[in-house]
Amino acid sequence: MKLYTFEMAPNPRRLKLFMQYKGIDIETQTINLGDKEQFTESYRAINPNCTVPALQLDDGTVLTDVISACLYLESLYPDKPLLGSTPLEQAQIIGWDHKVFVDGLAAVAEMLRNRGDFFQGRALPGDEVIEQIPALVERGQQRLHSFFQALEVHLVERDYLVGNAISLADIDAFVLCDFAGWVKESIPEGCSQLQAWYQRIAKQLGG
Amino acid sequence: MKLYTFEMAPNPRRLKLFMQYKGIDIETQTINLGDKEQFTESYRAINPNCTVPALQLDDGTVLTDVISACLYLESLYPDKPLLGSTPLEQAQIIGWDHKVFVDGLAAVAEMLRNRGDFFQGRALPGDEVIEQIPALVERGQQRLHSFFQALEVHLVERDYLVGNAISLADIDAFVLCDFAGWVKESIPEGCSQLQAWYQRIAKQLGG
Repeated sequence: MKLYTFEMAPNPRRLKLFMQYKGIDIETQTINLGDKEQFTESYRAINPNCTVPALQLDDGTVLTDVISACLYLESLYPDKPLLGSTPLEQAQIIGWDHKVFVDGLAAVAEMLRNRGDFFQGRALPGDEVIEQIPALVERGQQRLHSFFQALEVHLVERDYLVGNAISLADIDAFVLCDFAGWVKESIPEGCSQLQAWYQRIAKQLGG
Repeated sequence: MKLYTFEMAPNPRRLKLFMQYKGIDIETQTINLGDKEQFTESYRAINPNCTVPALQLDDGTVLTDVISACLYLESLYPDKPLLGSTPLEQAQIIGWDHKVFVDGLAAVAEMLRNRGDFFQGRALPGDEVIEQIPALVERGQQRLHSFFQALEVHLVERDYLVGNAISLADIDAFVLCDFAGWVKESIPEGCSQLQAWYQRIAKQLGG
């Protein structure tokens, strides 16, 4: 297997924290998004979507979604499970993974990519020219604030997003909280449950 | 268990086709989105997100994402599997489920909800006032056309999106093709692989 990634970006970081917690070590090549290396011919040959991470298996199959890579790796490395211990937990964790992506990470990405020069013509990840829509900056902010509140409500009387142990769902939401800093947002002051949860997860992920 | 749904809407339809194919029958209550019944107090008590479908389990747990509901139901009803027969297939199917949602269904939803009176102030699903952004209609169309092309390329020499049998990934993309009709879009004429795949899936789903 070989992993192509750029560890500081949010989606790669979800996978990195997942692998790090489980102690999974795979040959890794950095694709520097700052240098737009994802658009080179050699990387296109691996992942025509021009996104990271991409996990290339020994038979040539390439998994380009974080959730795919995590599911496959969990099957190979079942110790320290991060995708649940029962079918219901697995269902809930994958549901939260989806929700954190759509309602949280995508909201921050809207704020980040629909303004400024660096993402001009690249308002969405990938190869295609997608023009910025400045009104999405405000919508993204509104969505992010709502999602922080939703997480706060969910975490009342819960230590983790799902069940009684850390899971990929917590890693996703943890990465979201840090990614929010890229657009100068953070966990709102009133969200004490979410603040406490963040500290709990940070500690378990080893800081 | 009890299912709250509105069968003609795209996300409920993904779950309906999944259950129908597997022969799963659950007590069902229709929440009429046309009458905005998802915003009633009684439904809010079940799903505060005001979205459908929602699958309420006997212990009170409510699953509000299609992927969660499907994963849980597959564990209870393993016959006629729709989430793969190997860990790799499962990973790929869930990856495609995510991709069809983000790159396909969300694109059509952008076109549908960011214009017209019915969705004024409701440009995204749920309870919150989200104003329409007309520029998203064009972006949604661009994204949809690109995704149709991506499906076409993927289906060259493949009968199904993943593996050698129908899966939830195919159901998702099948529902997408029909949902596109809501905004007067359809599989482009040049996409012969996708056209043939659509007929193949329609037949297996029983028309």
